Amino acid sequence: MHTSPDSIARNAAPEGGRPAHPKRPRNVLFIMCDQLRRDYLSCYGHPTLRTPNIDWLAGRGVRFDQAYVQGAVCGPSRMSIYTGRYVSSHGSIFNFVPLRATEQGLGDYLRPAGIRCAVVGKTHVEGDTQGLARLGVKTDSMQGVLAAQGGFEPYVRDDGIWPFDGPQGLNQYDMYLRAKGYAGANLWHEQANSAMGDDGELLSGWHMRHADRPARIAEADSETAFMTDRAMDFIRARGEQPWCLHLSYIKPHWPYMAPAPYHGMYGPQDVLPPQRSQRELDDSHPVTDGYRQWDVSRSFCNDAVRRRVIPAYMGLVRQIDDHLGRLFDFLRRHGRLDDTLIVFASDHGDYLGDHWLGEKELFHDTVARVPLIVYDPTPQADARRGSTERSLVEAIDIVPTILDALGLPIPAHIIEGRSLLPMLHGCQDTPWRTAAFSEFNFGFRDSVRVPLARTVDQCHAMVVYDGRWKYVHYDGLPPHLFDLRNDPQEFEDRGRDPGLQGQRAEMKDRLFEWMFQRKRHPTIGLEQAHAYHAQEQQAVHIGVW
Amino acid sequence: MHTSPDSIARNAAPEGGRPAHPKRPRNVLFIMCDQLRRDYLSCYGHPTLRTPNIDWLAGRGVRFDQAYVQGAVCGPSRMSIYTGRYVSSHGSIFNFVPLRATEQGLGDYLRPAGIRCAVVGKTHVEGDTQGLARLGVKTDSMQGVLAAQGGFEPYVRDDGIWPFDGPQGLNQYDMYLRAKGYAGANLWHEQANSAMGDDGELLSGWHMRHADRPARIAEADSETAFMTDRAMDFIRARGEQPWCLHLSYIKPHWPYMAPAPYHGMYGPQDVLPPQRSQRELDDSHPVTDGYRQWDVSRSFCNDAVRRRVIPAYMGLVRQIDDHLGRLFDFLRRHGRLDDTLIVFASDHGDYLGDHWLGEKELFHDTVARVPLIVYDPTPQADARRGSTERSLVEAIDIVPTILDALGLPIPAHIIEGRSLLPMLHGCQDTPWRTAAFSEFNFGFRDSVRVPLARTVDQCHAMVVYDGRWKYVHYDGLPPHLFDLRNDPQEFEDRGRDPGLQGQRAEMKDRLFEWMFQRKRHPTIGLEQAHAYHAQEQQAVHIGVW
Repeated sequence: MHTSPDSIARNAAPEGGRPAHPKRPRNVLFIMCDQLRRDYLSCYGHPTLRTPNIDWLAGRGVRFDQAYVQGAVCGPSRMSIYTGRYVSSHGSIFNFVPLRATEQGLGDYLRPAGIRCAVVGKTHVEGDTQGLARLGVKTDSMQGVLAAQGGFEPYVRDDGIWPFDGPQGLNQYDMYLRAKGYAGANLWHEQANSAMGDDGELLSGWHMRHADRPARIAEADSETAFMTDRAMDFIRARGEQPWCLHLSYIKPHWPYMAPAPYHGMYGPQDVLPPQRSQRELDDSHPVTDGYRQWDVSRSFCNDAVRRRVIPAYMGLVRQIDDHLGRLFDFLRRHGRLDDTLIVFASDHGDYLGDHWLGEKELFHDTVARVPLIVYDPTPQADARRGSTERSLVEAIDIVPTILDALGLPIPAHIIEGRSLLPMLHGCQDTPWRTAAFSEFNFGFRDSVRVPLARTVDQCHAMVVYDGRWKYVHYDGLPPHLFDLRNDPQEFEDRGRDPGLQGQRAEMKDRLFEWMFQRKRHPTIGLEQAHAYHAQEQQAVHIGVW
Repeated sequence: MHTSPDSIARNAAPEGGRPAHPKRPRNVLFIMCDQLRRDYLSCYGHPTLRTPNIDWLAGRGVRFDQAYVQGAVCGPSRMSIYTGRYVSSHGSIFNFVPLRATEQGLGDYLRPAGIRCAVVGKTHVEGDTQGLARLGVKTDSMQGVLAAQGGFEPYVRDDGIWPFDGPQGLNQYDMYLRAKGYAGANLWHEQANSAMGDDGELLSGWHMRHADRPARIAEADSETAFMTDRAMDFIRARGEQPWCLHLSYIKPHWPYMAPAPYHGMYGPQDVLPPQRSQRELDDSHPVTDGYRQWDVSRSFCNDAVRRRVIPAYMGLVRQIDDHLGRLFDFLRRHGRLDDTLIVFASDHGDYLGDHWLGEKELFHDTVARVPLIVYDPTPQADARRGSTERSLVEAIDIVPTILDALGLPIPAHIIEGRSLLPMLHGCQDTPWRTAAFSEFNFGFRDSVRVPLARTVDQCHAMVVYDGRWKYVHYDGLPPHLFDLRNDPQEFEDRGRDPGLQGQRAEMKDRLFEWMFQRKRHPTIGLEQAHAYHAQEQQAVHIGVW
């Protein structure tokens, strides 16, 4: 299914002065939101939150209804998205676990083809400082910078989330705010992510009770506006040169604090009831129990918290949608809607109290099933515009889709995702995957790991979902099993149901196959491997009498 | 069980002017032979081949009776040995598959501790040229050289096996021979690995029919002698500075050609009957069938071949033993037997016609079970000198054993082997592994892969052996199952025996656990991972009301 170098060469060859096939996109705009739930977009069914611009994109592209991330927490999910590889393959199993210097990201595949690949916003890539130092790679060399950025040129690298203490001062958003006249030690915190009290005091956005207040910053100076502006700067500067931009908003990720007017655009009446059931609490499991002990889960079990936080979360989503409208207009004016592949996705959801949990990190659809929309401007994609694709897709499919759309080879010995291009073109004619996979590690959460007296190595979990059954395997703990056909809300854990032993064995077998078939030789391509024997025979005589 | 940095610090602290604990070895001599079968040493039971010096080492150290390599072919086996990691973890799944630049070898762990770690002889490490180039690492920088050598300082890197065509001229052995007055385009081939015909013509060692003739070279100038001399050069030059030397003989690997007098030391009367059974041929399996079609297998099914080749193979082993005697004398004279840990091992065996096969690469004990002897000079090891250890050990245990013996920390998040030091000291008090694992990939052999119409990705196999049952899992092909208790020669494949379905399921489950528990986050240590949650709480507030 993947485009081979041969077929690329043929496609690229002009016949009678015109390309043999209709043109490909020249540019790529890969938009990502952080912690955006799939069901908090109107095109994915939210009843009161309107996202007309994202909906517009869905109307022009294909909306994937069953898209799963490979790890429902920022770092691992993004490393999988950027490398096209499962979490166990790239090894960055949690936030801030450095991405091995030899892993390659999207930019590493585009740069040799002459396409600049930059990021505006968040990647969560943690450079493999030790690995690079061991290899003598200077952190300020071009290669050192790119390796530490997962292959992205850091046009504006900004992961948000600047900790309390001390001035930050060196990130571009901070410099922008200072130039605008904002004052403070940590402008990100004090201005963009805090509110003003009735007596003029600073109300930190870290405290969710302040989520109904507006951020102290003007909307036009907020992070979402700033990043959208920088995206336009980059695209404008590229002119007619091909480009790939990863526009990676850090919202609606916490702190849940929206600038006016978005802070007040939604109210408690818009807050949907939590998806949770008493059955979940009755059916105790040490991992979910442990996560439910975590502060953020306890907070979101309080309805007052949900009523105050969720409207802010919705406002932040709506704000992104408005800025995407601005960006799409910009693209249209510059003719870029005709030659730009646009991908819209999220790295994971947000429990917001569903399943008696806050944050993310586990396996429920709430956090693992994300929005994914792909717009291909070429005529081949016309037949499927505005359609919904229900196949099981994985976030690791994004990079191979981009490569395929640009006519670049997909290194099949490295990338574990598959191109969605045939689906976008309505010509998917080879068998598609029948299960999606993800992983998580609960060892980075003390409320879970410590009571179990385990090392982080003993806390890994693997998830397989086949479109009906979702199975979660732990090392020496009971598994989870959910029947999403009959229990789409995932309330009833059948992981210990004696009647379903056969089903669990079947799902475990899927995991076996998946582990067994992992791409394990990233340093040698298939063609090279297949040429081995003949080359050896030319070089030496083995066993000749 | 692993030594923690804390305990090291305590051990190193002198009390009253003397170390609190008895001293450790200061140096390491890690001797490896290539393609040496376990049963071709007298201490492992060969009836006529005498290896008194290796036997002497076994008498002073511990002889491991059930040591398994992690892949029974040079490249993967050695990359596992040098990195302490399973083949799927280091990714060098076959010969010449580059070792990812971020993998670390023994030298990478010793160098920061001030211990020079060099190789004399073969490593089969293939540098990750593309990965290093992408990172801007120059191949002639110190870091580039070390990365391309798997962490070994290439004192004399010589993998032997110089292909037919053209002069080589740049390796040290070639230069040595030229300086000695030998003439020819490819001295390795024409002198060291070819014989002289009755009419003075060159008889290539590549043709096994010549194996009964002596190599054209003087014994003192043969590869085994040369490497032993270079090893002594290195050790001598180090004086009282600590060192680790990997003395890695390329013999008795083919070409099977021994210098006089070793070429004629053994004869057809010393050739043991092949370990093979008609049952093996009757019970057809596409993978073993394919390997049996390979030229080298067909040659070794000819008894005339065995009668001529095996005496030469034995001579090459005996030659190594004699030179080890010379080396051990040298160590004794320099006082180095008192402060040097000595490891003796092989990277895999050689079928030599057993199981109707030649070469190696598969799973039988013939090729996967290797000799392993470890000599620890310290008094702690006195109690077990000369003893035989029957626990299942893996070749990936060698590196952690060396680190442990030297009092260096074992990076538990990277290294998958376990230190054998407690066994050497007779104080192994934690549960030991109950199974050994290995892998192979038949996709690099056209006689196997091509008839099956598979890509190399579909040709991976995993092997688990629990001390009785050996199970081999393939992707979509019948497994193998052998009961070594009742069939120690592995003649009867029970892989399709309907009565053993439960046993196969149990073994497959062992493989599941093994894959599931793989070390998958080499860029972050356990302690650092365990500190994550507390550090995050100091930096940000998540979910606080």
